[in-house]
Amino acid sequence: MIKVVIFGSGNLAQHLILALQKASDVELVQAFARNEKDLLKVLDSDKITSNYNHIKNADLYIIAVSDNAIQEVSNLLPFSNKLVAHTSGSVAIEMLNDKNRKAVFYPLQTFSKNKEINFSEIPICLEAENTTDLQILKQVAKTISDVVYEINSKQRKSLHVAAVFVNNFVNHLYQIGNDICSDNNVPFDILKPLITETANKILMLSPTNAQTGPAKRRDTTTINAHLTFLSDENQKNIYKILTKSIIDNDQKL
Amino acid sequence: MIKVVIFGSGNLAQHLILALQKASDVELVQAFARNEKDLLKVLDSDKITSNYNHIKNADLYIIAVSDNAIQEVSNLLPFSNKLVAHTSGSVAIEMLNDKNRKAVFYPLQTFSKNKEINFSEIPICLEAENTTDLQILKQVAKTISDVVYEINSKQRKSLHVAAVFVNNFVNHLYQIGNDICSDNNVPFDILKPLITETANKILMLSPTNAQTGPAKRRDTTTINAHLTFLSDENQKNIYKILTKSIIDNDQKL
Repeated sequence: MIKVVIFGSGNLAQHLILALQKASDVELVQAFARNEKDLLKVLDSDKITSNYNHIKNADLYIIAVSDNAIQEVSNLLPFSNKLVAHTSGSVAIEMLNDKNRKAVFYPLQTFSKNKEINFSEIPICLEAENTTDLQILKQVAKTISDVVYEINSKQRKSLHVAAVFVNNFVNHLYQIGNDICSDNNVPFDILKPLITETANKILMLSPTNAQTGPAKRRDTTTINAHLTFLSDENQKNIYKILTKSIIDNDQKL
Repeated sequence: MIKVVIFGSGNLAQHLILALQKASDVELVQAFARNEKDLLKVLDSDKITSNYNHIKNADLYIIAVSDNAIQEVSNLLPFSNKLVAHTSGSVAIEMLNDKNRKAVFYPLQTFSKNKEINFSEIPICLEAENTTDLQILKQVAKTISDVVYEINSKQRKSLHVAAVFVNNFVNHLYQIGNDICSDNNVPFDILKPLITETANKILMLSPTNAQTGPAKRRDTTTINAHLTFLSDENQKNIYKILTKSIIDNDQKL
């Protein structure tokens, strides 16, 4: 039985706490939160602490706090030579304090409060300083997810940047679609089946083969009609830049 | 029984032919293709013609050809006072020849050959010159789809522009995510659960509430680290512009 302690009370920490409690071969012995109340809806109160001196013994400590708090939490740990992992896509493994064995346990997904998530489909990207530690991380990761990868710091950084494009920026394009609809009294709901299908297509086709639309077809009549239609300068600018990028990308192929 | 003739042999025409053959209360009497062979895998040969003089009598003629061929096909029709609809999101209803009753039958979805599609979930946007014609369009649309909207030409134009953002441009962001992964020897597959969840979230949350990431958090440390990481000038530029757009959008709220 691998014993785990989790630090944090945000979306990711809560989802991890729920997933690890259900997992076999892993025992979630404790969770640490500055404000213990924040975890009461996911964990029994006797397993929650806000005092660094009360942290229990464990095989793996997972620091699932916001990026800028990782270093501080790792510095405050009152023990040494233990396996300590952070969960961030963008923080270097070296940010963890040297007194413990450093690792990364990065689940690549977007977590929202109040939206349940199936952890078994979430890729978990692991990094450790030696193979023994990597084995412990793998054992824990595999109890909650079917997709576990070993990823070094540079690869993890690239994944985090790529994730900003396919998640944060994609959602912002949904926002622009929504704004255009509401400016023209059209329900945004009409676009939802298209949004779903666009994401589903990429599971079977490469992005190159899935690309359609006026830019792909070099349909300048439609492109110009769209630019004339758009009155918002920011929307117009994004339309121009992404259209040009699609055309340039095609010419590289 | 409403009789329908379809013009075209592309993705949309083929999907419409398949859907209408399965529909009750509608009879697909014929399909027209310049090259009859193009339709043999979706329709019996005796129902296919390439000769304008052999077009059968019908209650509704659907011109499902590429945007720039709509006007030509509509001009070549050898009859008048019939109900003729095109299927384009971006072509004005007035582009159809005046000799017939003009209409639009626009299914808002992305169609790929060799990828089956559930037509019942595809929104169909209808426009006609009078309520009698609109009723005919509605009857046909409802036999293949559960989501049928009456949408005027200006609204349809806005939908088409919005669709470029949430479909074509979103797919291009998948392309960039894919490029960043392959440049760093990371399998693009790791990002697929994130892509799926990003699209699923928008079915329950508004884009504003679903927005996460460094721009939303004003996390300039991460934003600058990402910009340093990106070496491709085009990717860098798109990153900057979409980050600024997310921040500006937030400040409008």
